[in-house]
Amino acid sequence: MIRFNSDYCEGAHPRLLAKLVSTNLEQTPGYGEDPYCRQAAQTIRDLCHAPKAAVHFLVGGTQTNLTVIAAALRPHQGVLCADTGHIHVHETGSIEACGHKVLALPSENGKISAAAVDAAIKAHYASSAFEHTVQPKMVYISNPTELGTLYQKAELTALHEVCSAHGLYLFMDGARLAYGLAAAANDLTLPDLASLCDVFYIGGTKVGALFGEAVVIMHPSLQSDFRYLIKQRGGMLAKGRLLGLQFEELLCDGLYFELGRHAVSLAMKLKKAFQKTGYELLIDSPTNQQFVILPDTLLKSLAENFAFEYQQRIDASHSAVRFCTSWATKEEDIDRLITALH
Amino acid sequence: MIRFNSDYCEGAHPRLLAKLVSTNLEQTPGYGEDPYCRQAAQTIRDLCHAPKAAVHFLVGGTQTNLTVIAAALRPHQGVLCADTGHIHVHETGSIEACGHKVLALPSENGKISAAAVDAAIKAHYASSAFEHTVQPKMVYISNPTELGTLYQKAELTALHEVCSAHGLYLFMDGARLAYGLAAAANDLTLPDLASLCDVFYIGGTKVGALFGEAVVIMHPSLQSDFRYLIKQRGGMLAKGRLLGLQFEELLCDGLYFELGRHAVSLAMKLKKAFQKTGYELLIDSPTNQQFVILPDTLLKSLAENFAFEYQQRIDASHSAVRFCTSWATKEEDIDRLITALH
Amino acid sequence: MIRFNSDYCEGAHPRLLAKLVSTNLEQTPGYGEDPYCRQAAQTIRDLCHAPKAAVHFLVGGTQTNLTVIAAALRPHQGVLCADTGHIHVHETGSIEACGHKVLALPSENGKISAAAVDAAIKAHYASSAFEHTVQPKMVYISNPTELGTLYQKAELTALHEVCSAHGLYLFMDGARLAYGLAAAANDLTLPDLASLCDVFYIGGTKVGALFGEAVVIMHPSLQSDFRYLIKQRGGMLAKGRLLGLQFEELLCDGLYFELGRHAVSLAMKLKKAFQKTGYELLIDSPTNQQFVILPDTLLKSLAENFAFEYQQRIDASHSAVRFCTSWATKEEDIDRLITALH
Amino acid sequence: MIRFNSDYCEGAHPRLLAKLVSTNLEQTPGYGEDPYCRQAAQTIRDLCHAPKAAVHFLVGGTQTNLTVIAAALRPHQGVLCADTGHIHVHETGSIEACGHKVLALPSENGKISAAAVDAAIKAHYASSAFEHTVQPKMVYISNPTELGTLYQKAELTALHEVCSAHGLYLFMDGARLAYGLAAAANDLTLPDLASLCDVFYIGGTKVGALFGEAVVIMHPSLQSDFRYLIKQRGGMLAKGRLLGLQFEELLCDGLYFELGRHAVSLAMKLKKAFQKTGYELLIDSPTNQQFVILPDTLLKSLAENFAFEYQQRIDASHSAVRFCTSWATKEEDIDRLITALH
Repeated sequence: MIRFNSDYCEGAHPRLLAKLVSTNLEQTPGYGEDPYCRQAAQTIRDLCHAPKAAVHFLVGGTQTNLTVIAAALRPHQGVLCADTGHIHVHETGSIEACGHKVLALPSENGKISAAAVDAAIKAHYASSAFEHTVQPKMVYISNPTELGTLYQKAELTALHEVCSAHGLYLFMDGARLAYGLAAAANDLTLPDLASLCDVFYIGGTKVGALFGEAVVIMHPSLQSDFRYLIKQRGGMLAKGRLLGLQFEELLCDGLYFELGRHAVSLAMKLKKAFQKTGYELLIDSPTNQQFVILPDTLLKSLAENFAFEYQQRIDASHSAVRFCTSWATKEEDIDRLITALH
Repeated sequence: MIRFNSDYCEGAHPRLLAKLVSTNLEQTPGYGEDPYCRQAAQTIRDLCHAPKAAVHFLVGGTQTNLTVIAAALRPHQGVLCADTGHIHVHETGSIEACGHKVLALPSENGKISAAAVDAAIKAHYASSAFEHTVQPKMVYISNPTELGTLYQKAELTALHEVCSAHGLYLFMDGARLAYGLAAAANDLTLPDLASLCDVFYIGGTKVGALFGEAVVIMHPSLQSDFRYLIKQRGGMLAKGRLLGLQFEELLCDGLYFELGRHAVSLAMKLKKAFQKTGYELLIDSPTNQQFVILPDTLLKSLAENFAFEYQQRIDASHSAVRFCTSWATKEEDIDRLITALH
Repeated sequence: MIRFNSDYCEGAHPRLLAKLVSTNLEQTPGYGEDPYCRQAAQTIRDLCHAPKAAVHFLVGGTQTNLTVIAAALRPHQGVLCADTGHIHVHETGSIEACGHKVLALPSENGKISAAAVDAAIKAHYASSAFEHTVQPKMVYISNPTELGTLYQKAELTALHEVCSAHGLYLFMDGARLAYGLAAAANDLTLPDLASLCDVFYIGGTKVGALFGEAVVIMHPSLQSDFRYLIKQRGGMLAKGRLLGLQFEELLCDGLYFELGRHAVSLAMKLKKAFQKTGYELLIDSPTNQQFVILPDTLLKSLAENFAFEYQQRIDASHSAVRFCTSWATKEEDIDRLITALH
Repeated sequence: MIRFNSDYCEGAHPRLLAKLVSTNLEQTPGYGEDPYCRQAAQTIRDLCHAPKAAVHFLVGGTQTNLTVIAAALRPHQGVLCADTGHIHVHETGSIEACGHKVLALPSENGKISAAAVDAAIKAHYASSAFEHTVQPKMVYISNPTELGTLYQKAELTALHEVCSAHGLYLFMDGARLAYGLAAAANDLTLPDLASLCDVFYIGGTKVGALFGEAVVIMHPSLQSDFRYLIKQRGGMLAKGRLLGLQFEELLCDGLYFELGRHAVSLAMKLKKAFQKTGYELLIDSPTNQQFVILPDTLLKSLAENFAFEYQQRIDASHSAVRFCTSWATKEEDIDRLITALH
């Protein structure tokens, strides 16, 4: 069985494991207050050209999303996001469990526009009974989105401007950030994210780490007391250095970006094969997640050797499915899949 | 600097790291639904003589405590625990953040008695306005406690009986379980825990794993839908196999218990040295945490080479401090400390 | 200014006030444990043919909704409702503040169908990652709905059957129940509600009381410990008898139903006037809320003498607005409005 | 049965009822946005010499406490209070249900001192692991306390200074405020409260109103968006004017203070009778709640004609009980009780 069902099927890039092994018996303070976390945080600040950023390391995406949002919002405030947003549909109501409504907006290819956000905020305050509805205070986007698509710099800038104008925080979930930065269509850089977002994270779990998300907090209000929230929500890893070590290794010399390029390059090879073979794409994704419409008969035979994720039924004999490449995908496995498509 | 300030200063036992390395590029399903988690769960059921136990793996202790308690209680219910209990004093109000009051009981050496629990429950129902107070529905204990002490089988049996009689759940935090099981004073076994507790966990973070706590759920009501809660609270590790792999390695042939014995044996050596040198113990702990009262002058000089945890001021010139040994403690480091005591 | 903007513009029906005055200096126990609450609860059980129902009195609708839902759900569970449902759009995220996601379903005229509920539940369990999404455990409907429409007995029976089949609770918000029961199109009775719903309430605030909602709990699981929840959520009125007295007066001899008929009869008179004058209805409502599309010029002149609620823009020169009648509406005021329409 | 078990056994002062009756059929906007609420708020600002105060009216005490605290705190913050404080022991964990820990301090006669608060705050920040514990951010006191005692102006000033110095909010629960202001020992005025507290409330439920608490918010941070919180927590009364009308009647010409003096005067008569008869007081209360130690035999015979509240067992044959007077207590009933004591 060759797995393309997700981008977290393997362990970690060997360099990260080697680093864990070589430092294994060192003694350090716990809870992220060790030299490795400090060093990784500084590396991130440097890469982001953001000397005042607060950087924290958490274990996983749901944990990161809920901790950031719980830290940011007062009880009557909610977070605007795409109706396909991960926090809305795939985190078991974790944001609501923190007391906050997810204010879902209709999305196009997984994205929401500044205009839609602006309209939602204005509609809130235009209501004569606005205090009877949840106050929008944050915008959550994923980049790449859950559908593999990307925000362009102009789109992110527009979101930033709408948020600034209305006093909302802009939060970017970067669980697959490397796969976005590596895309041909991408025009965003880490310093762009640092200047346009109030908080965002650089995902490690899906890009070569055993686990880990590096949260970069730009807005001073969001920086305050953040470690209390990490601890309270169960996200403070006792051996926090495991996170610092991995991120430092990923980021010290560009490995993170290289892993991104590897996955995207293989995804593009697969995408071209779909198109060449005549299969329609569900979404035109420039990143490591590829959504394609295939005949059910083909899916049945593919399923004997390949794992992929079912998305939705298209018609009586076709379904859309997702194939993910990752930092660990072998080109020979992509070739086997392409062969099996024929 | 030699660290005795906690039992999570190092990484993992080399055998666990080796296992992670050797399986690193295997592809498995995520979120704990892999063969390694299944195998480790079965090993735990076998060790506990509990074929119907549900076993889940979480990353850390605070996360485990809050997930178990949130899964167990209705909103008006609270959890009885020692006023020194970890959930009451060292988890940033994580239980309250889930909506539940921690009902602290006066403790002796970190422990609460069945009689005190019984009295608290009866006092609740005896009140004419009992619906105006939080309903006790769970008892939380740590074993070893935060002060290194142990529950005897008779004490745990009495707690079990009180809980059963009143319909409360009995929950044991076993973050340092190995260090309890290895103590000379211990008369409890894993099968005892499985038959006396409704839910407990076998701590890995402090006993040789990079991270990880194995939750063993005995009570059928608590088993229901538990994975939803893990996901919602941010505790579902994408690469869940990392937990299964580590616990299987710890438990397959007794390594976990051996590591416990190692730490306790060195702690006893240290304890004897304290006593021999004439220093008074704050608490008579039979496990890996040792609490001793030392002159401030000595502490100042020790602090140049050793890390330990400050506990409390005793008098104008003495303080109580904690020294922890662990699976990774080297006998030579204990010897250095003992030498420095003189 | 004549107010048709809501059905809670006045105080209480004079008979209720008289009852409060005549009993004012009596001394009773507090918190709803007085003879008047007991009597009113029995009257409700009798009217519902539900001798085992638990009846509780709360002050207002949002409070009632959040208390019932918080009492019913575990943390990972959510409540299905129409996307126009009051708990989804007009209660400032009160359900999310209790930790639960409102699972909004597309609605038609404010209603959801058993088929849509069934599909949502099946979709949840059909997902390979169902534990990553909120588990549906309750269905919330309003009757009359927020748009004045009604559930027919066949529709409610179908919802009941779907809920029973899948183990969900069916909860009916009856804030305007009298105005539904009085409608010509209605075919439901209180005993029907008691046999088809797991919990529902009989609204007083909008039907002649100063305030008050009578919650009727049929399902034994929901009955358990409900008073703790009322107290915890701030809904336990110290002088609880004020609620019992008002409900007893409303229900002892049919006043409640008479007030319903009064409001609906005047609403029908207004509706006919709209239709006769040639104005289109936004919704064909058989109850006390009437939604009509009027020219903006007319609305401007009406606004000088009448209060109504703006709903939405229809086109460049027309808007939909809501007019409410109530137990207190005077026929002469309806006549004035009708005259002003011409 | 003559009831002295609480101060909310009757309805409302006749003047308030008369006001409700005379305005009953007026039409006003809902949710507290009516002229009566505006007028009452202005009356309160005038009485407090606090032109910038925000004034809101809620129905009951638990609701008020939880709404104020939920509005004020971030998730990792808690509220310091006496271990006898109402929010700690008699509100079914309502504060915890909002996510916040109540940080109970040992109390003396129901009070906490500025020194104890200062010590608790300093202990928090002195900890090397302060982020692992709940951050104190508010101090809650009741005045009169749950034991009938009072804060002197010097004590309140000291609390104010400690709170200001450390950035905590000072919140006073004034559910029985009139009974405090009327006490001979009192040296506080409403303007004092407005200048020393960040938020406090003037209790109506226990002092002549059917229900109602008037919240006075001084601190600008706490004023922001408060109405959202009221709505979200179910405390926004549809017919909000009922609150405005009652408070205006209570406060427009001093009725509130007169009712306070009435109750306290009768309480003092009763207290003197206890002392004269030789019964020991449990607490030396200068307000309307009197706590006395009586022989169980006497209590048994008293219980045939009088209701009072059991407090605690004192010895094998004596118990402490509470007798409350109120705005509605008749002197003849006090005389009957005094006679029965002999």
